[in-house]
Amino acid sequence: MEKRCWITDQPLDIQIITEKVIRREAGAINTFIGTVREFTNGRKTLFLQYESYKEMAEKKLEQIATEIDQHWPEAVTVIAHRVGRLEISDIAVMIAVSTPHRSDSYEASRYAIERIKEIVPIWKKEHWEDGEEWIGDQKQTRPGIPLKGEIK
Amino acid sequence: MEKRCWITDQPLDIQIITEKVIRREAGAINTFIGTVREFTNGRKTLFLQYESYKEMAEKKLEQIATEIDQHWPEAVTVIAHRVGRLEISDIAVMIAVSTPHRSDSYEASRYAIERIKEIVPIWKKEHWEDGEEWIGDQKQTRPGIPLKGEIK
Repeated sequence: MEKRCWITDQPLDIQIITEKVIRREAGAINTFIGTVREFTNGRKTLFLQYESYKEMAEKKLEQIATEIDQHWPEAVTVIAHRVGRLEISDIAVMIAVSTPHRSDSYEASRYAIERIKEIVPIWKKEHWEDGEEWIGDQKQTRPGIPLKGEIK
Repeated sequence: MEKRCWITDQPLDIQIITEKVIRREAGAINTFIGTVREFTNGRKTLFLQYESYKEMAEKKLEQIATEIDQHWPEAVTVIAHRVGRLEISDIAVMIAVSTPHRSDSYEASRYAIERIKEIVPIWKKEHWEDGEEWIGDQKQTRPGIPLKGEIK
Protein backbone atom coordinates (compact mmCIF):
# COMPACT_ATOMS: atom_id res chain seq x y z
CA MET A 1 0.00 0.00 0.00
CA GLU A 2 1.18 3.49 -0.81
CA LYS A 3 2.22 5.51 2.23
CA ARG A 4 -0.02 8.35 3.32
CA CYS A 5 2.76 9.96 5.40
CA TRP A 6 6.34 10.33 4.35
CA ILE A 7 9.65 12.17 4.74
CA THR A 8 11.59 13.00 1.58
CA ASP A 9 14.58 15.02 0.44
CA GLN A 10 12.83 15.76 -2.86
CA PRO A 11 10.60 18.78 -3.61
CA LEU A 12 6.96 18.34 -2.54
CA ASP A 13 4.49 18.38 -5.41
CA ILE A 14 1.31 20.32 -4.55
CA GLN A 15 -0.74 18.77 -7.35
CA ILE A 16 0.22 15.16 -6.64
CA ILE A 17 -0.27 15.46 -2.87
CA THR A 18 -3.66 17.16 -3.20
CA GLU A 19 -4.90 14.63 -5.76
CA LYS A 20 -4.23 11.82 -3.31
CA VAL A 21 -7.18 12.92 -1.18
CA ILE A 22 -9.69 13.79 -3.93
CA ARG A 23 -12.54 11.24 -3.93
CA ARG A 24 -16.24 10.91 -4.68
CA GLU A 25 -17.28 10.97 -1.01
CA ALA A 26 -15.53 14.28 -0.31
CA GLY A 27 -16.90 17.76 -0.87
CA ALA A 28 -14.06 19.60 0.86
CA ILE A 29 -10.28 19.54 0.77
CA ASN A 30 -8.10 21.65 3.01
CA THR A 31 -4.39 21.85 2.42
CA PHE A 32 -1.72 23.44 4.54
CA ILE A 33 1.63 24.22 2.96
CA GLY A 34 4.52 25.42 5.10
CA THR A 35 7.11 27.36 3.13
CA VAL A 36 10.48 28.85 4.03
CA ARG A 37 9.92 32.47 5.00
CA GLU A 38 12.64 35.03 4.38
CA PHE A 39 12.26 37.15 7.52
CA THR A 40 11.51 36.12 11.12
CA ASN A 41 11.29 38.96 13.63
CA GLY A 42 13.30 41.15 11.29
CA ARG A 43 16.09 38.60 10.93
CA LYS A 44 16.89 37.41 7.42
CA THR A 45 17.04 33.71 6.62
CA LEU A 46 19.36 32.69 3.76
CA PHE A 47 18.28 29.05 3.68
CA LEU A 48 17.17 26.28 6.03
CA GLN A 49 18.35 22.79 6.67
CA TYR A 50 15.98 20.14 8.00
CA GLU A 51 17.16 16.88 9.44
CA SER A 52 15.12 14.03 10.79
CA TYR A 53 15.33 10.59 12.29
CA LYS A 54 13.42 9.39 9.23
CA GLU A 55 11.88 6.15 10.44
CA MET A 56 10.70 7.68 13.68
CA ALA A 57 9.48 10.86 11.95
CA GLU A 58 7.39 8.84 9.48
CA LYS A 59 6.02 6.79 12.34
CA LYS A 60 4.98 9.96 14.16
CA LEU A 61 3.36 11.42 11.04
CA GLU A 62 1.43 8.17 10.66
CA GLN A 63 0.42 8.43 14.31
CA ILE A 64 -1.02 11.89 13.62
CA ALA A 65 -2.96 10.56 10.62
CA THR A 66 -4.34 7.81 12.84
CA GLU A 67 -5.37 10.36 15.47
CA ILE A 68 -7.23 12.21 12.72
CA ASP A 69 -8.95 8.95 11.69
CA GLN A 70 -10.16 8.64 15.26
CA HIS A 71 -11.35 12.22 15.71
CA TRP A 72 -12.67 12.70 12.15
CA PRO A 73 -13.62 9.21 10.89
CA GLU A 74 -14.67 10.48 7.46
CA ALA A 75 -11.36 12.26 6.76
CA VAL A 76 -8.65 11.09 4.40
CA THR A 77 -5.26 12.56 5.28
CA VAL A 78 -1.89 12.81 3.55
CA ILE A 79 1.19 14.40 5.16
CA ALA A 80 4.62 14.91 3.60
CA HIS A 81 7.66 16.62 5.09
CA ARG A 82 10.77 17.54 3.19
CA VAL A 83 14.27 17.42 4.69
CA GLY A 84 17.67 18.65 3.53
CA ARG A 85 18.55 22.12 2.34
CA LEU A 86 15.56 24.33 1.53
CA GLU A 87 15.68 27.73 -0.12
CA ILE A 88 13.35 30.66 0.53
CA SER A 89 9.76 29.80 -0.60
CA ASP A 90 10.49 26.07 -0.83
CA ILE A 91 7.81 23.83 0.64
CA ALA A 92 8.89 22.19 3.91
CA VAL A 93 5.65 20.47 4.83
CA MET A 94 2.33 19.77 3.18
CA ILE A 95 -0.89 18.41 4.65
CA ALA A 96 -3.98 17.55 2.62
CA VAL A 97 -7.25 16.46 4.21
CA SER A 98 -10.50 15.65 2.44
CA THR A 99 -13.84 15.29 4.21
CA PRO A 100 -17.51 15.29 3.20
CA HIS A 101 -18.08 18.74 4.78
CA ARG A 102 -15.78 21.73 5.04
CA SER A 103 -15.59 22.32 8.78
CA ASP A 104 -13.96 18.96 9.37
CA SER A 105 -11.36 19.55 6.65
CA TYR A 106 -10.20 22.79 8.31
CA GLU A 107 -10.19 21.31 11.79
CA ALA A 108 -8.33 18.13 10.90
CA SER A 109 -5.74 20.01 8.82
CA ARG A 110 -5.08 22.43 11.67
CA TYR A 111 -4.83 19.58 14.11
CA ALA A 112 -2.23 17.91 11.89
CA ILE A 113 0.13 20.89 11.67
CA GLU A 114 -0.04 21.59 15.41
CA ARG A 115 0.72 17.95 16.18
CA ILE A 116 3.61 17.91 13.69
CA LYS A 117 5.21 20.83 15.49
CA GLU A 118 4.63 19.01 18.75
CA ILE A 119 5.71 15.41 18.29
CA VAL A 120 7.62 14.84 15.04
CA PRO A 121 11.42 14.57 15.41
CA ILE A 122 12.52 16.97 12.70
CA TRP A 123 15.19 19.55 13.45
CA LYS A 124 15.64 22.80 11.63
CA LYS A 125 18.92 24.65 11.20
CA GLU A 126 18.39 28.33 10.49
CA HIS A 127 21.09 29.82 8.32
CA TRP A 128 20.63 33.48 9.14
CA GLU A 129 22.39 36.28 7.38
CA ASP A 130 24.38 36.78 10.59
CA GLY A 131 24.86 33.25 11.87
CA GLU A 132 23.46 29.75 12.24
CA GLU A 133 21.22 28.13 14.81
CA TRP A 134 19.70 24.70 15.36
CA ILE A 135 16.02 24.95 16.21
CA GLY A 136 15.39 21.66 17.98
CA ASP A 137 11.86 22.58 18.80
CA GLN A 138 9.64 23.53 15.89
CA LYS A 139 7.05 25.29 18.02
CA GLN A 140 6.99 28.98 17.22
CA THR A 141 3.48 29.40 18.48
CA ARG A 142 1.50 26.80 20.34
CA PRO A 143 -2.07 27.97 20.60
CA GLY A 144 -3.19 24.53 21.80
CA ILE A 145 -4.27 21.61 19.68
CA PRO A 146 -7.77 22.16 18.39
CA LEU A 147 -9.86 19.03 18.57
CA LYS A 148 -13.05 18.28 16.65
CA GLY A 149 -15.61 20.97 17.30
CA GLU A 150 -13.20 23.41 18.92
CA ILE A 151 -12.68 25.45 15.75
CA LYS A 152 -15.91 27.21 14.90
CA MET B 1 -2.99 43.56 -13.47
CA GLU B 2 -3.90 39.91 -13.24
CA LYS B 3 -7.16 39.26 -11.40
CA ARG B 4 -6.98 37.66 -7.98
CA CYS B 5 -10.65 36.61 -8.07
CA TRP B 6 -12.42 35.14 -11.06
CA ILE B 7 -15.29 33.03 -12.39
CA THR B 8 -14.54 30.56 -15.17
CA ASP B 9 -16.16 27.69 -17.05
CA GLN B 10 -12.78 25.96 -17.31
CA PRO B 11 -11.32 23.42 -14.84
CA LEU B 12 -9.54 24.99 -11.87
CA ASP B 13 -5.83 24.19 -11.70
CA ILE B 14 -4.66 23.48 -8.14
CA GLN B 15 -0.98 24.05 -8.92
CA ILE B 16 -1.44 27.32 -10.76
CA ILE B 17 -3.83 28.78 -8.18
CA THR B 18 -1.63 27.82 -5.23
CA GLU B 19 1.50 29.18 -6.87
CA LYS B 20 -0.12 32.58 -7.21
CA VAL B 21 0.15 33.11 -3.45
CA ILE B 22 3.64 31.66 -2.83
CA ARG B 23 6.07 34.44 -1.90
CA ARG B 24 9.18 35.15 0.16
CA GLU B 25 7.27 36.88 2.97
CA ALA B 26 4.95 33.92 3.55
CA GLY B 27 5.59 30.89 5.70
CA ALA B 28 2.07 29.46 5.45
CA ILE B 29 -0.41 28.73 2.70
CA ASN B 30 -3.89 27.43 3.32
CA THR B 31 -6.04 26.27 0.45
CA PHE B 32 -9.66 25.26 0.43
CA ILE B 33 -10.96 23.23 -2.48
CA GLY B 34 -14.66 22.53 -2.81
CA THR B 35 -15.41 19.46 -4.92
CA VAL B 36 -18.63 17.87 -6.16
CA ARG B 37 -19.65 15.22 -3.64
CA GLU B 38 -21.56 12.18 -4.83
CA PHE B 39 -23.92 11.73 -1.88
CA THR B 40 -25.76 14.34 0.22
CA ASN B 41 -27.94 12.98 3.01
CA GLY B 42 -28.11 9.64 1.23
CA ARG B 43 -29.23 11.18 -2.06
CA LYS B 44 -27.06 10.54 -5.09
CA THR B 45 -25.86 13.43 -7.26
CA LEU B 46 -25.21 12.64 -10.94
CA PHE B 47 -23.69 16.02 -11.78
CA LEU B 48 -24.07 19.70 -10.88
CA GLN B 49 -24.65 22.81 -12.87
CA TYR B 50 -23.47 26.18 -11.60
CA GLU B 51 -24.65 29.45 -13.05
CA SER B 52 -23.66 32.94 -12.09
CA TYR B 53 -24.18 36.56 -12.86
CA LYS B 54 -20.49 36.67 -13.75
CA GLU B 55 -19.68 40.36 -13.38
CA MET B 56 -21.45 40.63 -10.07
CA ALA B 57 -20.02 37.34 -8.79
CA GLU B 58 -16.45 38.45 -9.56
CA LYS B 59 -17.16 41.77 -7.90
CA LYS B 60 -18.37 39.97 -4.77
CA LEU B 61 -15.33 37.66 -4.73
CA GLU B 62 -13.12 40.73 -4.99
CA GLN B 63 -15.08 42.29 -2.11
CA ILE B 64 -14.30 39.22 0.01
CA ALA B 65 -10.59 39.45 -0.86
CA THR B 66 -10.69 43.11 0.16
CA GLU B 67 -12.35 42.21 3.46
CA ILE B 68 -9.51 39.76 4.05
CA ASP B 69 -6.98 42.52 3.27
CA GLN B 70 -8.61 44.58 5.99
CA HIS B 71 -8.83 41.85 8.64
CA TRP B 72 -5.51 40.14 7.80
CA PRO B 73 -3.28 42.86 6.26
CA GLU B 74 -0.40 40.48 5.64
CA ALA B 75 -2.50 37.95 3.68
CA VAL B 76 -2.43 37.43 -0.08
CA THR B 77 -5.65 35.86 -1.36
CA VAL B 78 -6.75 34.21 -4.59
CA ILE B 79 -10.29 32.92 -5.19
CA ALA B 80 -11.61 31.12 -8.26
CA HIS B 81 -15.07 29.65 -8.85
CA ARG B 82 -16.03 27.42 -11.72
CA VAL B 83 -19.42 27.49 -13.40
CA GLY B 84 -21.15 25.24 -15.93
CA ARG B 85 -21.58 21.48 -15.72
CA LEU B 86 -19.42 19.78 -13.11
CA GLU B 87 -19.01 16.04 -12.64
CA ILE B 88 -18.44 14.21 -9.35
CA SER B 89 -15.05 15.18 -7.81
CA ASP B 90 -14.64 18.21 -10.08
CA ILE B 91 -13.44 21.35 -8.32
CA ALA B 92 -16.16 24.00 -7.96
CA VAL B 93 -14.27 26.55 -5.90
CA MET B 94 -10.72 27.11 -4.78
CA ILE B 95 -9.31 29.58 -2.27
CA ALA B 96 -5.60 30.05 -1.58
CA VAL B 97 -4.30 32.35 1.15
CA SER B 98 -0.68 32.92 2.12
CA THR B 99 0.40 34.66 5.30
CA PRO B 100 3.59 34.95 7.34
CA HIS B 101 2.20 32.70 10.11
CA ARG B 102 -0.13 29.73 9.92
CA SER B 103 -3.03 30.79 12.13
CA ASP B 104 -3.89 33.68 9.86
CA SER B 105 -3.86 31.48 6.76
CA TYR B 106 -6.45 29.12 8.25
CA GLU B 107 -8.63 31.92 9.55
CA ALA B 108 -8.63 33.97 6.35
CA SER B 109 -9.28 30.92 4.19
CA ARG B 110 -12.22 29.88 6.35
CA TYR B 111 -13.57 33.40 6.31
CA ALA B 112 -13.44 33.40 2.50
CA ILE B 113 -15.46 30.22 2.00
CA GLU B 114 -18.13 31.25 4.51
CA ARG B 115 -18.48 34.64 2.83
CA ILE B 116 -18.66 33.03 -0.63
CA LYS B 117 -21.60 30.93 0.51
CA GLU B 118 -23.16 34.04 1.96
CA ILE B 119 -22.86 36.81 -0.62
CA VAL B 120 -21.74 35.54 -4.04
CA PRO B 121 -24.51 35.20 -6.65
CA ILE B 122 -23.82 31.68 -7.89
CA TRP B 123 -26.66 29.21 -8.23
CA LYS B 124 -26.33 25.46 -8.18
CA LYS B 125 -28.61 23.01 -9.92
CA GLU B 126 -28.45 19.58 -8.36
CA HIS B 127 -29.05 16.79 -10.83
CA TRP B 128 -30.04 14.01 -8.46
CA GLU B 129 -30.56 10.43 -9.51
CA ASP B 130 -34.28 11.00 -8.88
CA GLY B 131 -34.81 14.58 -10.02
CA GLU B 132 -33.42 18.08 -10.35
CA GLU B 133 -33.39 21.05 -8.03
CA TRP B 134 -32.09 24.61 -8.14
CA ILE B 135 -30.24 25.50 -4.95
CA GLY B 136 -30.42 29.27 -4.96
CA ASP B 137 -28.81 29.51 -1.57
CA GLN B 138 -25.41 27.86 -1.23
CA LYS B 139 -25.51 27.77 2.56
CA GLN B 140 -25.61 24.19 3.77
CA THR B 141 -24.23 25.05 7.13
CA ARG B 142 -23.68 28.53 8.48
CA PRO B 143 -21.66 28.29 11.67
CA GLY B 144 -21.05 32.04 11.62
CA ILE B 145 -18.27 33.90 9.91
CA PRO B 146 -15.08 33.58 11.91
CA LEU B 147 -13.18 36.83 12.12
CA LYS B 148 -9.51 37.28 12.93
CA GLY B 149 -8.74 35.69 16.26
CA GLU B 150 -12.00 33.81 16.55
CA ILE B 151 -10.53 30.52 15.31
CA LYS B 152 -8.02 29.30 17.84
